Amino acid sequence: LTFLDNIKQPALILDERKCRSNIHRMVEKAQKQGLFFRPHFKTHQSKMIGEWFRGEGVTAITVSSVSMARYFAEAGWNDITIAFPLNILEKQEIDDLSKTISLNILVSSAKVLAGFDEIPLGVFIKIDCGYHRAGISVERFDEIEDILAFCRNSSALQFRGFLTHSGNTYQASTPQEVNLIHEHARNHMAGLKVRYLGTFPDLVISTGDTPSCSIAGDFTGISEIRPGNFVFYDLMQAMIGSCNPDDIAVALACPVVETHPDRNEVIIYGGAIHLSKESCLDRKGTPVFGQVVMLSESGWGEPLPDCFVKSLSQEHGVVYLPDRYTDYFKPGSIAGILPVHSCLTAQAMRGYSGLSGQLFDHI
Amino acid sequence: LTFLDNIKQPALILDERKCRSNIHRMVEKAQKQGLFFRPHFKTHQSKMIGEWFRGEGVTAITVSSVSMARYFAEAGWNDITIAFPLNILEKQEIDDLSKTISLNILVSSAKVLAGFDEIPLGVFIKIDCGYHRAGISVERFDEIEDILAFCRNSSALQFRGFLTHSGNTYQASTPQEVNLIHEHARNHMAGLKVRYLGTFPDLVISTGDTPSCSIAGDFTGISEIRPGNFVFYDLMQAMIGSCNPDDIAVALACPVVETHPDRNEVIIYGGAIHLSKESCLDRKGTPVFGQVVMLSESGWGEPLPDCFVKSLSQEHGVVYLPDRYTDYFKPGSIAGILPVHSCLTAQAMRGYSGLSGQLFDHI
Repeated sequence: LTFLDNIKQPALILDERKCRSNIHRMVEKAQKQGLFFRPHFKTHQSKMIGEWFRGEGVTAITVSSVSMARYFAEAGWNDITIAFPLNILEKQEIDDLSKTISLNILVSSAKVLAGFDEIPLGVFIKIDCGYHRAGISVERFDEIEDILAFCRNSSALQFRGFLTHSGNTYQASTPQEVNLIHEHARNHMAGLKVRYLGTFPDLVISTGDTPSCSIAGDFTGISEIRPGNFVFYDLMQAMIGSCNPDDIAVALACPVVETHPDRNEVIIYGGAIHLSKESCLDRKGTPVFGQVVMLSESGWGEPLPDCFVKSLSQEHGVVYLPDRYTDYFKPGSIAGILPVHSCLTAQAMRGYSGLSGQLFDHI
Repeated sequence: LTFLDNIKQPALILDERKCRSNIHRMVEKAQKQGLFFRPHFKTHQSKMIGEWFRGEGVTAITVSSVSMARYFAEAGWNDITIAFPLNILEKQEIDDLSKTISLNILVSSAKVLAGFDEIPLGVFIKIDCGYHRAGISVERFDEIEDILAFCRNSSALQFRGFLTHSGNTYQASTPQEVNLIHEHARNHMAGLKVRYLGTFPDLVISTGDTPSCSIAGDFTGISEIRPGNFVFYDLMQAMIGSCNPDDIAVALACPVVETHPDRNEVIIYGGAIHLSKESCLDRKGTPVFGQVVMLSESGWGEPLPDCFVKSLSQEHGVVYLPDRYTDYFKPGSIAGILPVHSCLTAQAMRGYSGLSGQLFDHI
């Protein structure tokens, strides 16, 4: 009997070896580059997987919500950055948490800090280097100074440094493009470092996206990295060039429920509520919601060429298979699907099964 | 104090009055058209909302998984169709459930029934009238006959009828297009009825999609409808013309965390893990992940013109607001977001808050 014999419904399979190897590789890279490693735990959201990081010497983490911070604080993590714009409605929860751990928040305006001046928090200023989601534009020194002034006037708030997230690397299609975005952000952040290091000798310059952290080779001026997705990687990262397809550490196991050989399709039990509705374009420009792997007791290998999830509804997935693969997928067999965006798939599934059938938690 | 004062994180707000009115309207339409009403419960997945259907006289339901069937069987529903291709890996679970309630399954091949011939189940044959997801093409009488023969040879399996789902109406952009797809399916299904009614006088002809059930006026030849999404509706349905925007019964309440007046954007705490990554094109062809409403203690009104969610990441949403609305949304205020696809938003949120702050369950 293998883990496959227990699967009756969609299950997110975790290859522990690949996952630990992804963690180890990033830990080594951070060490080699002299970077403080504060991995983002929003991708796995698992206390058990968190322990694999601890085993590699990791002591500080990043999360994306107050509730995620609380969850990992309960698991013994006592140095946490909430890398999401300060939500002032959660003041009480942040206050409570600040009494038990070393907690950093993220702001891009002094105004939101009103009412927080007596809470012992580390403060990162979010800088927008071109992604244009959250943060202060890098040249708006007036806004930066307002926040620094607010922190100076508070006995509890401690300015820690500048933090950016180049999420625009997710739209890159080559490592070269990732490097260009990374270099652009790095230069901007290095400029802030030069400007403020005199006043703040412990100034942290923090960057984060998985593509840059996986691909880039020059981190001069940066002191901390916060990648998260690399723990599992996914098809989007493989297409960008952040990883090899073989590094992807999770696959959704999906029972096959119908075959349509006339149109080279099979229907799987596995839909948008399992994989998420995230898609990406493959090399031919076709929208893809997942790629197909053959599952065995030892896990899975490379994606089967030209086999992909072409559409998703709530519980159904439609998988395209060239003729040579149709015999492998019949009602009752189980297809493995590599997710386009593992953070969203993990969130949808809320739990993992290991290759020995053991279960791993998710918030 | 209103329900709004308790919101600190994204919460899915349910307007009970709108929801009950959507249910009542569809019950009335089914009665007027002489149709058996077997609503799909996959959208709300709530025992409590299920009771509102019971209050309208509903006695039989549709679900999309064995686990959903079990959940509603526990809530006292004893006549359930699992409108998803039979997953033979769940044979034991189906067998168990068949002993406690009247259970119908869906098949499009006789082969999958091997091993099920001693389980007391109603059998629907899934017909593909043009959606090309699951089901037998309407003209493949050989495949239909194989299933009928299998049921005839089983003392436990009872052929119930033909079932179709015109999911292609979700791609329609006008009520006229919906009607064309509905008429096409209805004619096909009526043909099957004519062919088989002599042999099976209790033959059920079952159709289901919310656009057809909301818009179409002619159900001749159809005996049962199974819409689900109508319980909440959503932006996609409003754009198709299945409902008015004012009928949408759920809105995601999202704390505003940043403002960017220079680009007419605010950042909300509310991302792909709350709304789902489903998008649709608005009348101008812009991809939209949600539309903005003003929340008050009595709920919300029409979507604010030209205010929409332009992108989503894991927890962040980026909302575009024309100048005249920017003053209403500041850090600490709460924006209401009408979802593009309420089934996926409900699944992501797994619970509802009523306008009086009461909580409603989700599986």
